Formats: sequence, structure tokens, C-alpha cells
Amino acid sequence: MSRFQVIAFDADDTLWHNERLYVEAQSRFKKLLAPYHSPEWIDERLYQAELRNLGHFGYGIKGFALSMIETAVELTEGRIAGAQIQTIIDTAKSMLSAEVELLEHVAETIPLLAQRYPLMLITKGDLRDQEIKIARSGLADHFHRIEIVSEKNPASYAALLERHAIPPEHFLMVGNSLRSDVLPVLELGGSAVYVPYQHTWGHEAADPPAAQPGYYHLAHLGLLPELLERLDGDGQQTMGSNP
Amino acid sequence: MSRFQVIAFDADDTLWHNERLYVEAQSRFKKLLAPYHSPEWIDERLYQAELRNLGHFGYGIKGFALSMIETAVELTEGRIAGAQIQTIIDTAKSMLSAEVELLEHVAETIPLLAQRYPLMLITKGDLRDQEIKIARSGLADHFHRIEIVSEKNPASYAALLERHAIPPEHFLMVGNSLRSDVLPVLELGGSAVYVPYQHTWGHEAADPPAAQPGYYHLAHLGLLPELLERLDGDGQQTMGSNP
Repeated sequence: MSRFQVIAFDADDTLWHNERLYVEAQSRFKKLLAPYHSPEWIDERLYQAELRNLGHFGYGIKGFALSMIETAVELTEGRIAGAQIQTIIDTAKSMLSAEVELLEHVAETIPLLAQRYPLMLITKGDLRDQEIKIARSGLADHFHRIEIVSEKNPASYAALLERHAIPPEHFLMVGNSLRSDVLPVLELGGSAVYVPYQHTWGHEAADPPAAQPGYYHLAHLGLLPELLERLDGDGQQTMGSNP
Repeated sequence: MSRFQVIAFDADDTLWHNERLYVEAQSRFKKLLAPYHSPEWIDERLYQAELRNLGHFGYGIKGFALSMIETAVELTEGRIAGAQIQTIIDTAKSMLSAEVELLEHVAETIPLLAQRYPLMLITKGDLRDQEIKIARSGLADHFHRIEIVSEKNPASYAALLERHAIPPEHFLMVGNSLRSDVLPVLELGGSAVYVPYQHTWGHEAADPPAAQPGYYHLAHLGLLPELLERLDGDGQQTMGSNP
């Protein structure tokens, strides 16, 4: 029997590409404002607007669109044209209807693991957008439970584990964000596998934890079944980033 | 013992004021565009934009803000000024941080009912905005379960009832929207109490169902305990809109 009662996965940039939609949108945004400012300054001001607006808008594409519009007004001193505002809104719409493209190894690994463990999906962001992406991913049936939360921190993980009666020591979380998927779970005494993605939004960046029990680092999701076999085979904690 | 295993409540415009925030925002929006068009035409075009964008943005203030911006661009043929766009974004922010004001009778009725029944809150919209309003309302502790869904239809109610192992015939839903709170629950064989609010968004409007078993209509929430006592006292179905 496995030491893990549940294996939980983050979704965006863990199972499918997401951040690159933002990178592409931001690149179109910089082109739009190129007559006014340098790309670096536009990036910087947009990031500041996103952070400032996080308390109002939370995570997700609609809030990102409103922050882009606000930044465009600010950086053009109000001279931004209506047609350009519409371009920003259209960018948001195309982000919202983008195809869901699975990351490498996901399509084989998730069904394989679903035969051995109850899987859970824990994702943060807009409820509706996340539901649509989960449906489009074709992976929904492999997950026993899908939880969409507004924030991933120790309190929200603790509430979720309590609701499902999962002791933290039997919980493993897999994700690409140290800040959202790894550190809060380790803090509760759970285990966490960090699988980095090619892009990380500034706000999600964090220092990797020092080697400690329960923390693992994999180059890609295809390595997870082997790690789990080894952990369950050992019957004891294996440590560090070199599985 | 009650025939109802759970009494569930809608939140916006059932427990606290919400639609009037939209009505007020829309009134500011019409003032902003008054130099260009009549209030009626602005209302009409904004409503069309909201419906058109529902598939992209879903429900909630951020989507509403993006629809207002899109309508402003459209109705001014792109001549809308940056400062006016910012006014629309600021309106959205003030909606998002508005105080939660309970409807009459709610502050007494919910704690009273919570002593007698397990209460559930079922609300649709932006996850984060709903969580914030629930926290601000001061009512959260009276609810056994809080469910935030992206859509209220027979399928989403059926999934929710199954997840909580509630047979529809032991489920009572209370809300201000015939379309979202009443009709889908009746369709599943549950009971529903319609408590109209002073404003109804066009999209939520529907014809009241003909008198049928399980459908009740109350003028305000303060009348609910008496209705429930009567229903449980009878031990049999009481019908219609004249409790």
C-alpha cells in the first residue's frame, strides 16, 4: 500500500501550457505600445499594475486584460485609441478560447498514475476558465476530485485536506510553482514535487527550499511514476533533488 | 424530523444586495456616454455585449467591466478617451470592494434556521469575489457547506446533490432567480422557494412556474421559518404561492 493517500496536481503549466499565453499576449501588448515606450518599461509598468490590482481582480485572464488596459491608458497618458483598447480585449478573448495543449509526458503519465492512486487536481484562478480548460484537456476523468481555489497557501491547503480527511503526511502535491504548489504543502508537513516550467510569472517565483524531507525536484512529469515507485518501495523518506 | 435534509440559499440578491451595484455602475456608464447616445440605446448595446461575451467572460464584475469598455469603444466609434476608460475600470474596482449589505430579515433568519437545519450556500460567479463577499457578510459560520459554481443548471445541481448524497426530494433551494435557483431544482424533483429581489438582470428573468408541488413564493426571507414549520408540520406537500 502506498504511503500516499492522494497524489494532487496543479494544472496550469504543470499539466498544460498556460503562462506562454500570457507571454504571447504581453508581446502583442508591447508592440501596440511600441510608439510610446520601450518594451522593458512596458513590462515593468504592466507587472506593477498586475500586482497592484491582484487584491481587486485576483488571478486570471480577465484581471490581466483590465491591467493591460489600465497600463495602456497610463503609459499613453490617455491617448490610447479605442481600436487599440479593443485589440487588448480581443487578445483576452483569444486567450480564453485557446486550445489546451498538454505538456510532454502528461498524456501517458496521468492515466498510468490514475490506475495506482486517487488523483486530485488543485488549481487556482477563475472558476469558469479553469473548468473549461479541464474539460478541454481530456484529463478530467482521471481525477477523483477537482478543486478550484482562489489562493494556494497553507490555510487553503489545510482546509482542503481537512475537508477530504487527508493527513498531510499522506499527501503529495505536484506542480510548477514553488510558491503555490511546493512551499505551503511542505509547511503543512506534506510532500511536494517541483516540476519547473519554461516560464514563471514574477509573482510565482520563489527560492527552492533547501533539501528537506518531503521535497523532490523532477525535470519533467514523465519521471514521476518512477519516483513514486521508489518512495513506496523504500517505505521510508527519500530526500532531495536527485531521484 | 424535517423532510428537508438541507436548506440551500443563493447569495447575491437573496442574502445581500448585489444587482443594484450593477444598476448604479450602469447609471454612471450612461452618464459617461451621454454626449454620444441615449440612455436606452446604451442600455441595449451594453446588454447585447454582456450576452455576447458571456461565453468568454462568464458572470461577474470583471467581465461586466470588459463589456462596458467594449461598448464604450463601439458606441463612440473609438473616440472614447483614456480617462473615461479608466473611470470604467475604477467603477469595477469600487464594485469589487463594496460593502456587503444584508437584505432585510436575513440577519435574524439565517442564524435561526441554522439551529434547525444544515444550511448550504450555493452561489455562482467569480470564485474570489464570492469568497470575499461571503467573508464580509458575517454569515459564513452558519453554513455547513459553501459551493461556488460557474453555472446553475440542472446538471450542476445534480452533480452537487450527488457529491453531497442529498436526494432531490429532501433538498430545498431558496433564491431570487427563477432561472438559476428555482426552475432547475424543480426539474430535478427538489423544492424551491422564490423570493424576488427589487432588480432582476434581463438574463436571469423567466416566467414563474405554474403552481406545482415543491414551488413556493415568498415576499421576503423573514417568512421562510414559518413556511418550513408548516411544511414539516403537515408532513405532506403544501402547494403554491400563498403560504
